[in-house]
Amino acid sequence: MKFEHLLVQMKERMPEKRYVHTKGVAMTAIRLAKRYGEDPEKAEIAGILHDSVKYADKEWLKQIIISENMDPVLLEFHHELWHAPVGSYVAKHEFKIEDEDILQAIKYHTTGRAGMSNLEKIIYISDMIEPNRQFFGVEVLREKAEKDLDDSMISCIAHSITFLIEKRQSVYPDSFHCYNDMMQKRGKVKE
Amino acid sequence: MKFEHLLVQMKERMPEKRYVHTKGVAMTAIRLAKRYGEDPEKAEIAGILHDSVKYADKEWLKQIIISENMDPVLLEFHHELWHAPVGSYVAKHEFKIEDEDILQAIKYHTTGRAGMSNLEKIIYISDMIEPNRQFFGVEVLREKAEKDLDDSMISCIAHSITFLIEKRQSVYPDSFHCYNDMMQKRGKVKE
Repeated sequence: MKFEHLLVQMKERMPEKRYVHTKGVAMTAIRLAKRYGEDPEKAEIAGILHDSVKYADKEWLKQIIISENMDPVLLEFHHELWHAPVGSYVAKHEFKIEDEDILQAIKYHTTGRAGMSNLEKIIYISDMIEPNRQFFGVEVLREKAEKDLDDSMISCIAHSITFLIEKRQSVYPDSFHCYNDMMQKRGKVKE
Repeated sequence: MKFEHLLVQMKERMPEKRYVHTKGVAMTAIRLAKRYGEDPEKAEIAGILHDSVKYADKEWLKQIIISENMDPVLLEFHHELWHAPVGSYVAKHEFKIEDEDILQAIKYHTTGRAGMSNLEKIIYISDMIEPNRQFFGVEVLREKAEKDLDDSMISCIAHSITFLIEKRQSVYPDSFHCYNDMMQKRGKVKE
């Protein structure tokens, strides 16, 4: 990989298992970027940095959300969601990433959103299907990822939402808007 | 039932199967209203009238939505949703129902919404579990309806959303807000 210096820093910030996942996401994102005509270097950077603050202190994450005027609704939802927007902030201010598409891909990698770019979709999908992920249905998601980016994104966000609802957890509004947005765009293409 | 004169009018507006369903919803709603301390007469009226325009002309439904300044987002979603708000309008203007809780129960019987009243929950649940409904999982929903109104509502709205997503259909925002609202209130009670 081209951005080994970033990867080395991730190793210090997370347990081994999460580091292996991080490499898996970056490798998958590079492959999907090449498959769908996106910039593989951007995909690699976003993949490496997406979980940079996954193990940061919860109170610190909360403070960044408040001090940086991020959506306060985040704080009403599970703290598991907080590392994505704060990770985007850290990518910009600590790792000096300026590319907005990379920053947005990190920001929305756990929730998705309406109007995602291809790079955002690639990171979201890669996070779900990288080779170390094991859950019922992951093989089907992996197969779809090779065939059609939007179909794959729809399947991934549908899987996430139904998984959360079956566990009776709240669903962050962006995920829901992501699903409806993708479905409505697909509907319109078909007309 | 006390409101036979309304029921008679429903018979003329819908196929026999839907009329049988309508009676089933009204009977179930009366029982649940008594179970949960709500007014069984209101439940009966809302149950009888909930599908009054289910078989109305699509263009007419659309015109009412526009002329009555209902949420224009409705028109971006499946026309199957339109009969609920228009049914509420018809209940008020044709059947002269003035009780706001009955009107809201009809209006939100297909989508739910954040902040539902007990009567609204009773009609939503009754519509899903009345004795003529047959689908995988309905028995579990029927059992829950006898035990706890909010748990039952959560299970019903969760079932609706996951069913739509598995069929890859859009989900009207009110349904999603209903689910999150119910989950967040339950979470707060537990704290």
